[in-house]
Amino acid sequence: MEDFHLCPKFEQAFELLGKRWTGLIIRVLLTGPKRFKDISDFIPSMSDRMLSERFKELEAAGMIIRHVYPETPVRIEYELTDKGRGLEPAMTELQMWADKW
Amino acid sequence: MEDFHLCPKFEQAFELLGKRWTGLIIRVLLTGPKRFKDISDFIPSMSDRMLSERFKELEAAGMIIRHVYPETPVRIEYELTDKGRGLEPAMTELQMWADKW
Repeated sequence: MEDFHLCPKFEQAFELLGKRWTGLIIRVLLTGPKRFKDISDFIPSMSDRMLSERFKELEAAGMIIRHVYPETPVRIEYELTDKGRGLEPAMTELQMWADKW
Repeated sequence: MEDFHLCPKFEQAFELLGKRWTGLIIRVLLTGPKRFKDISDFIPSMSDRMLSERFKELEAAGMIIRHVYPETPVRIEYELTDKGRGLEPAMTELQMWADKW
């Protein structure tokens, strides 16, 4: 069990991902950059206020970046960083487990 | 995005695993059945009360089973079920991600 010095990082990952909606938001963004409304349409039971809060947490954690395109009207998109996209294999495994059980 | 009907299960998985200590308890049990004290020794900053609570949640979710051996003194061990052990690939991927980032 000598790899157990790693657990703080592991716990941190779970604490972030364990928050309601976070896993789902990341899964939606794994399909490509999205606007606020695109994501809220995919997750109808999540309030817009909750989505704003999750975006802030994910930005602070370096998982997503916010792009502002100076068009009229302004277009804002959210995209996973390399760190965020790095979760894809873990998400896939977790989905397979959830489907099976 | 047609696989998005799966999200309730995925969210449920994250809600269970996202609770503080749960991921770590499962990781310790992936190394084999353990007694209460074995686990609490591995996670010194978790209180015994918290561990009892997590055991109850994990038992209720069908992730662990409790074995009572009628010895003197009685020996009680906790073991992952097939469902619990099924998380190993996801845990491994998540650990790799956490190590990298």
